[in-house]
Amino acid sequence: MKRVGIIGGLGPASTVDYYNGIISASRAIESSAYPEIIIYSVDMIEMMAYAEAEDWGSLAEMLRNAVWKLADAGAEVAAMACNTTHIVYNQIAEKSALPLISIVSAACDEMQKLGVQRAAVIGTAFTMRSGLYTDALSRRGIKPILPSESEQGEIASLIYPNLEDGIVIAKDKERMLEIAEKLIRENDADCLLLGCTELPLMIKGGDLDTVLINTTQIHIGAIVSSMFS
Amino acid sequence: MKRVGIIGGLGPASTVDYYNGIISASRAIESSAYPEIIIYSVDMIEMMAYAEAEDWGSLAEMLRNAVWKLADAGAEVAAMACNTTHIVYNQIAEKSALPLISIVSAACDEMQKLGVQRAAVIGTAFTMRSGLYTDALSRRGIKPILPSESEQGEIASLIYPNLEDGIVIAKDKERMLEIAEKLIRENDADCLLLGCTELPLMIKGGDLDTVLINTTQIHIGAIVSSMFS
Repeated sequence: MKRVGIIGGLGPASTVDYYNGIISASRAIESSAYPEIIIYSVDMIEMMAYAEAEDWGSLAEMLRNAVWKLADAGAEVAAMACNTTHIVYNQIAEKSALPLISIVSAACDEMQKLGVQRAAVIGTAFTMRSGLYTDALSRRGIKPILPSESEQGEIASLIYPNLEDGIVIAKDKERMLEIAEKLIRENDADCLLLGCTELPLMIKGGDLDTVLINTTQIHIGAIVSSMFS
Repeated sequence: MKRVGIIGGLGPASTVDYYNGIISASRAIESSAYPEIIIYSVDMIEMMAYAEAEDWGSLAEMLRNAVWKLADAGAEVAAMACNTTHIVYNQIAEKSALPLISIVSAACDEMQKLGVQRAAVIGTAFTMRSGLYTDALSRRGIKPILPSESEQGEIASLIYPNLEDGIVIAKDKERMLEIAEKLIRENDADCLLLGCTELPLMIKGGDLDTVLINTTQIHIGAIVSSMFS
């Protein structure tokens, strides 16, 4: 089993999901041991500042350094426990010290397997604005559907700062479901891609009458596969 | 702020407590940043095998290596998120790559501050049998009170495997409280030391009519102090 390195802290609540998820998925495959996991939890405020300033070069450098640190500590494969930072995935991966499992590739592969044709995508403002999932979905023949610019702003404010800290506020959840439901209905989408690792803390199976694409869980599955390959 | 390294996975449930606890305590001091935290989560089954075999040399070596890995990844101060492994604290600390914050020293210092005189101690079989807290408490003039040998065995079986995995079974909790209550009453103890980082998942304030010494929370406080010193 390969030793996995996780870049965490983006935010801390989903890092805990990754940690628990990787352990339970690994032990479901091989119960005789606990996987060795190294987590480098970075400063989320620093990450957000680079993203706000659209200083993608500095963001990539910060994350590339974290991958090096994970490699120094003995990790053999790595992943970023966050969708937003995948905006700079290519810049990191091309000079990466370790193979870097992409959440975007994993989620899009899964959607292709599911036969999805029209995917409603929600996530942080950066994720939606950057077209992070747009290109990857289009390449697989899946139509990406994004909220309007004003709804993107509203979704962002429903994620930061509370949900990012793992806090689900009832009226925020209600509004998030309203926006998502309208997006799905008006565009005849056949799934909702939860394109932010904190969204599964708010939106649960049964909340909406559609297929939920839980990128966190799909990513964990891909990470564990790579650990055992 | 110093970058902290945590040896985790002993077990995973309390590692999550340390991670969340260090972040919230750090942000209570300085809210403008998230602390950088590196976690090396080791194989708990390997640790348990060394402890069962009383192969303390191999256990110390395994943990010393983890401290080196944390140092390689950039940690400046370290701690083991577990009481039991502190049995080999001295062996690790004397050749440690990093200053290692001891849960035993932190807990005993706190009890001294509280004016504790007679401390009932529960924890894993290894912790109770090894006298881990016995000597440290005695040096501070606090009388350590341990369960009988048969009760030690029973407490151990109430910790492994369920509580160690973060699962609290109602009848296990009931029996644990019964043993603890009798230990406190018969020995006139003025506190109960929860000498295993998973015990606070089971025993909560109000469950017993005594002061609870939550070693996990005290350790987190000492770790965060060292990060800011």
